[in-house]
Amino acid sequence: MSKRLTPALRQVKALTFDVFGTVVDWRGSIAREGRMLGKELGVRADWAAFADAWRAGYQPAMQEVRAGRLPWTNIDGLHRRILERILDASGLDGLSDAQKDHLNRAWHRLAPWPDAVRGLKRLKKGYVIATLSNGNVSLLTNMAKKAGLPWDCVLSAELFHHYKPDAEAYRGAAAMLGFEPHEVMMVAAHKNDLRAAQKAGLRAAFVQRPHEFGDPVKKDLKPEKDFDVNAADFQDLAARLGL
Amino acid sequence: MSKRLTPALRQVKALTFDVFGTVVDWRGSIAREGRMLGKELGVRADWAAFADAWRAGYQPAMQEVRAGRLPWTNIDGLHRRILERILDASGLDGLSDAQKDHLNRAWHRLAPWPDAVRGLKRLKKGYVIATLSNGNVSLLTNMAKKAGLPWDCVLSAELFHHYKPDAEAYRGAAAMLGFEPHEVMMVAAHKNDLRAAQKAGLRAAFVQRPHEFGDPVKKDLKPEKDFDVNAADFQDLAARLGL
Repeated sequence: MSKRLTPALRQVKALTFDVFGTVVDWRGSIAREGRMLGKELGVRADWAAFADAWRAGYQPAMQEVRAGRLPWTNIDGLHRRILERILDASGLDGLSDAQKDHLNRAWHRLAPWPDAVRGLKRLKKGYVIATLSNGNVSLLTNMAKKAGLPWDCVLSAELFHHYKPDAEAYRGAAAMLGFEPHEVMMVAAHKNDLRAAQKAGLRAAFVQRPHEFGDPVKKDLKPEKDFDVNAADFQDLAARLGL
Repeated sequence: MSKRLTPALRQVKALTFDVFGTVVDWRGSIAREGRMLGKELGVRADWAAFADAWRAGYQPAMQEVRAGRLPWTNIDGLHRRILERILDASGLDGLSDAQKDHLNRAWHRLAPWPDAVRGLKRLKKGYVIATLSNGNVSLLTNMAKKAGLPWDCVLSAELFHHYKPDAEAYRGAAAMLGFEPHEVMMVAAHKNDLRAAQKAGLRAAFVQRPHEFGDPVKKDLKPEKDFDVNAADFQDLAARLGL
């Protein structure tokens, strides 16, 4: 490992990755699935807006679980609840249950950013690489299989019954991998995820994903001095870690 | 998928694998690690007997947890407790804590049977392949990384706080993968593991591992009609599943 690494970075043994937006392009993928379904059914809609509407229900739904107003429900379950609410407005009323199930599982089929697979293969040579996503285990497993994401281990908020940014998810992941929190670095395109990881004792690597919401002006891409690494993508992250 | 498959087998979507003895050669690997340490320290012993003694403590230790006499303790913790009791008899008294830790983690470094990696790569083309071991997640993750075992997902009794053959482990694994029990087939070299999986609703594939305990006469290798598949090794299993 490179001598340029800070003492803190030299202790890192595992990288845990946020997935939606950091590893995969949820917006482009969901819009594409919507477009395909729309073509099949003769429905025209703004499918990027459909993706945005679906995603907009995500944080409030997790907050329902966090606040105890909803018993533990995994992301497949939350996605399905949100989907039921947005279908009509998208002109997709009248879908059969099987069609809804298939559409809901579009989140299992999200496509990776172009650098993701090659970057992960490179990072895997120096570190244990694992997901740490709010997505459920089966979603992450199916996604990895389809996209060729070479995880050493699939970890999810589902294992801890605590959605990120709850500290239990970060500390639980480190413990599950057999490491102290400071031996694990969270990799994410979202600063709130990284700040919560840091509060839980993990290290933090910020990765810019300018197109997560379509237009780069919609994303905070500014590097931050208090993150251990700021990287343009996974290849750049690997280079900055001396791999 | 092959037309020769039974209706029950055609519904199988995921394979969950027992690991110690089924995927990896724990006895040969532990004996080798003991021999290496013995050489370093100038200690002579029967290292295969050392491996057997360590393994012999395994079922009773899990029973302590199952009976509630010991709070949940993962396999690293149980292995370490057993190790403390057998060190003196093996002439390995006086090891430092770091040396004990390193030896205890020999279970993270077990070597696969010769057909395992290639067989798993072949099986991965037709099924979700996951561990379902009593070994803890970090043990299984480190083992996979070292040995190149291409799991889609690392599942462990640790996630359910129930050691196999408790039904919770099998049903929990199926649910975590997003499948009904009958859509999952347990693969193991041990009939009690398979019978428990069947009771929990899973399918069962028996794989012969004649050298698990050294001498083939020490193993029950007889195929059983009530298992869904009986195979000689993972390559044979893949062939029998039409892959």
